[in-house]
Parts: sequence; structure tokens; C-alpha cells
Amino acid sequence: MVSLEIHYPNGKTFHFKKEDRKIKVKKYQYGNRGMTLEDDINESNKYYLSNKIAVIHKKPTPIQIVQVDYPERSKAVIKEAYFKTPSTTDYNGVYRGKYLDFEAKETKSETSLPLKNFHEHQIRHTEAVLACGGIAFVIIRFSKTEEVFLLEGEHLLKFWQRMESGGRKSIAKDEIMQYGHYIPLGIQPRIDYIRLIESLYY
Amino acid sequence: MVSLEIHYPNGKTFHFKKEDRKIKVKKYQYGNRGMTLEDDINESNKYYLSNKIAVIHKKPTPIQIVQVDYPERSKAVIKEAYFKTPSTTDYNGVYRGKYLDFEAKETKSETSLPLKNFHEHQIRHTEAVLACGGIAFVIIRFSKTEEVFLLEGEHLLKFWQRMESGGRKSIAKDEIMQYGHYIPLGIQPRIDYIRLIESLYY
Repeated sequence: MVSLEIHYPNGKTFHFKKEDRKIKVKKYQYGNRGMTLEDDINESNKYYLSNKIAVIHKKPTPIQIVQVDYPERSKAVIKEAYFKTPSTTDYNGVYRGKYLDFEAKETKSETSLPLKNFHEHQIRHTEAVLACGGIAFVIIRFSKTEEVFLLEGEHLLKFWQRMESGGRKSIAKDEIMQYGHYIPLGIQPRIDYIRLIESLYY
Repeated sequence: MVSLEIHYPNGKTFHFKKEDRKIKVKKYQYGNRGMTLEDDINESNKYYLSNKIAVIHKKPTPIQIVQVDYPERSKAVIKEAYFKTPSTTDYNGVYRGKYLDFEAKETKSETSLPLKNFHEHQIRHTEAVLACGGIAFVIIRFSKTEEVFLLEGEHLLKFWQRMESGGRKSIAKDEIMQYGHYIPLGIQPRIDYIRLIESLYY
């Protein structure tokens, strides 16, 4: 999923603190609890890390840096840079020695996940990971109902191929319920996808 | 290792192409073949990826974005951003289902690798990865002789602990030769660390 921070308006035109702005933006854009799927996954990952269960991190957004200033007595400031297209998915890491790799996708639709939420490079990366024996999947949230599902990479690839063969341009929610796995929301961790991965792959 | 790109002078004061500049800077800074350790590893990773052997990527440098402009009819320009401290090592990925994680370190010293080349967060991350069953290591190049070694994360942690207990602040080259593994340079891939990992862990 695209980082929210990119879309912030220029901080300098605001008079309240950066932290306030962050909360405000998120509450406005994302449902009841004011938490994005990404927030929930990041908090779950923190829980896994501090309990030595799994080490999973979100990858930083790749940036092409063009100009950097080094003002005296203060830290380097990037003055000109551009977003680059990533070559991987957003999250990866290790659980019980195995490699996990996934993408998080949220949709406002109540009936399907549009495949335009995926980029070609994410699909190619998922294929490559599976070919090398990794565990690849998608965590999907239907934001209206706050239901979260895990769909294995193998199924994602099949739905993508269906689209490329002229079929529908989305995955129906019914299909996600049929081929994927519901993840009940918890307190700690909020989205316990590792428990599900454990039961599916170990 | 810190990305070279960060240290480029502002492209606008140069009259030759960006690609030329890149080669020039690298030849000047790094030894005979004009390739950094990072270049060699990235090319090896491309080889592994295109031959479906392993999927290993370098993580992007994490950036805190403060201001972005959206000029009409052109792409978003980041106008103010800062480097953030990463929470992981630089490289990770999958080989035959297992999680690999490593850092690349180059030194001009002929006798040791100073431990100041490592950051606290890289050591903590290495511990966490090992605790979750991942394969963690360092690829070390002595730039004067162009010798490359792989040292397992377990040994790195021991040398780090020795320093924290008041011992030497570097790993002697002799120790790297004793506990680590020499990687002969090749053509394709240039640094075949996966072959070594295969023999050590599979």
C-alpha cells in the first residue's frame, strides 16, 4: 500500500504539530478505529519482534536522491529527490527460519478487491519468491466491515492470470472467503497473521 | 554500507551525463576494478534473480519526507527530506525457502575490520534474525587486496560482545580467515555467496 506520508500537504502551512496532523489525516481517511491496515500490521510486527516470534519489517519507499545539502552544524537535508518504482512487495522477514513476503491491500469496496491495487512488479516478485520456496501472500482488509483476510500468493497469481486472459479485473470477496483465510482482529497482536501462517505452512 | 549516491555532488553543476559521473566517482573512490562491494553484490543478486536461484534485494535507505511538490504535468518532487536510521541490515531475501539477511562491509585496512563499521541496530537486528531461525552473516571485503569473506552472524555477535567487554574494537583479518570463509571472485556471479551458504546451511 502507498505510504500515507507521501500525500501530506506541505507541513509548513500547518500551525499544529506534526503528530496532530498525522492522527487527523488518518482518522479522516480510514474508518472507525482511525487505524490503517498498515498501522495494524506495523504494530503486530512490533509485537512479534519484541516477543522474538518473528522479524518482519516494512521496506522503506525507494527514493532517487538528486541533491543533498550539508548545512554546517546540522544534519544533511535532501533538497531534490524522486519516488522510484519499488521492485518488491512492502513487507518481508523471517518466522521459524522461513522467508515470508507480503503486501497489504485495503479496499473500500464491499464486494471485491480490484486488481488495479497491485502493480506488475509486485506480481513478478511474488512469482520469484514462490519459485525460490518462500511464503508469499496478501493481507486484505475490507475497510467498510473491517474484515481482514490472508490470501496465499499462489491464488493471487491465478486471479491475476485470469485478468490477463480477459477475465474479471478484481477478486470477488466470495473468492477471497473461499480461497483465503479470515483473520479475526485481536488486541495484541491486532492482526495475528503469523498464527495463521503457522497453521498453513509449518 | 552507506549508499554512494548520497554523497554525489549536486548533479546540476555537472555537464556530463549522470551515468558517466557515477562511474567516475566510483573509480576514484574504490580500487582497481572500479566496482564497489555493493556493486558486486547487486550484480550477483541480479544473476540469482534472473536464474531463479534466490531473491535477494538491497533495502532502500529510509527517508523521512517533509515536503513534496506536485508540479503540474510532471512527477512529484521531494523538496525536503532527511535520512533516518534504519532498523535492519541492508540485504535480505530467500534461498530455498530459508530467510537470508546480511550486511556488506568494505575496509581499507589490511589487517582488520574495525567494528565501528557496524551500527548498534545492525547488531540487534542480527540477534533477532538468528533468534527466529534466519541465516545472518556479513560479507567483508578488504579493498586493498580485493579479498572477500563471509562471516556468520554468530561470530560477528561474539566479536561485538568482546568489544563490549572491553576487548579489541575490531575483528582481526586472521580471525576472519579463521572463523569466516573466503569467497573467490567469479565472473557470473561476481561474489557467489549463495554457493557458500548452500554448503554451510543446507
